[in-house]
Amino acid sequence: MRIAGRHFRTIWRAENGDVLVIDQTRLPFEFETVRLAGLEEAAHAIRSMMVRGAPLIGATAAYGVALAMRRDPSDAHLAHAVELLRGTRPTAVNLAWALEQMTAALACPAEARAERAFARAAEICDRDVALCEAIGAHGLSIFERRFQEKGRKGPLDVLTHCNAGWLACVDWGTALAPIYKAHDAGLPIHVWVDETRPRNQGGSLTAYELGAHGVPHTIIADNTGGHLMQRGRVDLAIVGTDRTTSNGDVCNKIGTYLKALAAFDNKVPFYVALPSTTIDWALAHGAEIPIEERDARELSHITGRTAAGALETVAIYPPASAALNVGFDVTPARYVTGLITERGTCPASRDGLLTLFPEQARVAA
Amino acid sequence: MRIAGRHFRTIWRAENGDVLVIDQTRLPFEFETVRLAGLEEAAHAIRSMMVRGAPLIGATAAYGVALAMRRDPSDAHLAHAVELLRGTRPTAVNLAWALEQMTAALACPAEARAERAFARAAEICDRDVALCEAIGAHGLSIFERRFQEKGRKGPLDVLTHCNAGWLACVDWGTALAPIYKAHDAGLPIHVWVDETRPRNQGGSLTAYELGAHGVPHTIIADNTGGHLMQRGRVDLAIVGTDRTTSNGDVCNKIGTYLKALAAFDNKVPFYVALPSTTIDWALAHGAEIPIEERDARELSHITGRTAAGALETVAIYPPASAALNVGFDVTPARYVTGLITERGTCPASRDGLLTLFPEQARVAA
Repeated sequence: MRIAGRHFRTIWRAENGDVLVIDQTRLPFEFETVRLAGLEEAAHAIRSMMVRGAPLIGATAAYGVALAMRRDPSDAHLAHAVELLRGTRPTAVNLAWALEQMTAALACPAEARAERAFARAAEICDRDVALCEAIGAHGLSIFERRFQEKGRKGPLDVLTHCNAGWLACVDWGTALAPIYKAHDAGLPIHVWVDETRPRNQGGSLTAYELGAHGVPHTIIADNTGGHLMQRGRVDLAIVGTDRTTSNGDVCNKIGTYLKALAAFDNKVPFYVALPSTTIDWALAHGAEIPIEERDARELSHITGRTAAGALETVAIYPPASAALNVGFDVTPARYVTGLITERGTCPASRDGLLTLFPEQARVAA
Repeated sequence: MRIAGRHFRTIWRAENGDVLVIDQTRLPFEFETVRLAGLEEAAHAIRSMMVRGAPLIGATAAYGVALAMRRDPSDAHLAHAVELLRGTRPTAVNLAWALEQMTAALACPAEARAERAFARAAEICDRDVALCEAIGAHGLSIFERRFQEKGRKGPLDVLTHCNAGWLACVDWGTALAPIYKAHDAGLPIHVWVDETRPRNQGGSLTAYELGAHGVPHTIIADNTGGHLMQRGRVDLAIVGTDRTTSNGDVCNKIGTYLKALAAFDNKVPFYVALPSTTIDWALAHGAEIPIEERDARELSHITGRTAAGALETVAIYPPASAALNVGFDVTPARYVTGLITERGTCPASRDGLLTLFPEQARVAA
């Protein structure tokens, strides 16, 4: 998408063959690109969360393997690269998937590996862009219908939670893809951006990327969405998901469930955008998903810019008070209006998903 | 309640007759008391939010009048004091009420005014303490019943939102009064404290006062309560209210509605603690309540302590992004398990309220 009028992906190749990424740890305060010249830099970019978001982590790992092959395409170095990258973010499913793809592609003579690896990494990126763009197109038709229902009185007010945007992917994003499609198509749209405590990915990353692309938006506290829905100020809600179980239960950033409850109570459509790679066909429902508890410091400390312009981290709560930082919650399928996938939109249910992915009928049985 | 083992009210008289308050703008980082020697200091304490919370604002205004009468008990000075104090926080109902009480009490010869004024201000404080303590006693019996239902396996996990504690009142608080009563009675209790964005009164003030009194508690992001209820980790929720309409709709800090929805969805009892002075008998339901929008800076900036120990305010979001700061929301009566008042507990309905306040039947008709 665009930053100050110029098109960017989150990862791309420089003229000399190095790989460039945006340093997302400095957003929304500073826009800086970082050059990854080798395997170690790629691993560091993932580990330090300079790149984040499952698809982007996968893409960075793929390019990490390619950079390693450029220096030394031996079997031993390939094995070393895969092991090193696998350990950078142990729980990311896309990371393991990308490394498997790269390993399979590099079962060839060593001298052919570098070229093949860069080609396969580029394919992984292009495939992610195509998936997201397809989600965007399917979502756009839902947005257009909703805009018609609203009597074409603009703007269409869309609420989103956390960051399921292009910064988490290679381009477009998942939940934000239909928003960009709508905006680019001239449909008047305005986005309510949940700040998404405790890590504030909404207020920082979603607001940043919408602003950079020129999409009108307003940051709100996570407490606010219910009130806005009660007063008719939200036309639809759309979020991403980290994992959706085969019955349509949606695991996503903590607080998603509360917004879904409010949407249901106020008859506001609540959509989830997801590439089919995040559907967990093996799990029957969301209550089985283990939920990550993270460092309480993400809640008790916060980083921002001082009046003098410096970045500073401050403690905001009594040091003696305990804090609990839960990363995700599960929204039961009954509160989800529809799942928007790269193949189209379906009800949040096993039957709904199987109409789009009939090849999974055996697995999900 | 207690701070480091010593009992405090939020406002009290020094030996020389001055009035002392806790500077709440410095909490939770520093505990400092401030001496109010005259009218101007009292007005400043309210205006600067050194004191906050409707009951405490009323009490401070009452003492402000008394301090003014100590210096000059003339009619002109009385009128001046009342006018000055009335303008400190225009929307506070308790402020206007306290000033009316003081004016009525001071319809007497000037030389008698100072003594009468201090006596009436003390009565206003004692009355607030008695109201809150009665709420605490009624709430305690609900907590004890819930603890029995839980099979007496402790602790009782209580979730609260914002700060309806003793720091907002003179002592005890409203929603926190039953928590203090339970803790002091030896009932094992643990409080989930919503941080309560955007002003963080939960994470700062509620956590501070619970910690200072020794009540076990854990700060959570506002997004977290729904998940904790889904996983059976909340036994009941209790909040305060700024205004409750005659049908039992509850206006309270933004986000209360979302927690009430989650409590309803998970069959967790959801109580509202309120002195009857906050019941608006003239309003038929909550949709009629105008909702305050506040400075967006409360959302986009935050104050905390740096590693070097200084208090610093930082901007946390993209400066070009708009932000909306809505202060309150309305929880429909159907999601409220009960209203806990100084006269006892009743269903959140017109009929329920009238069983406790039959004298209002004519007004609320």
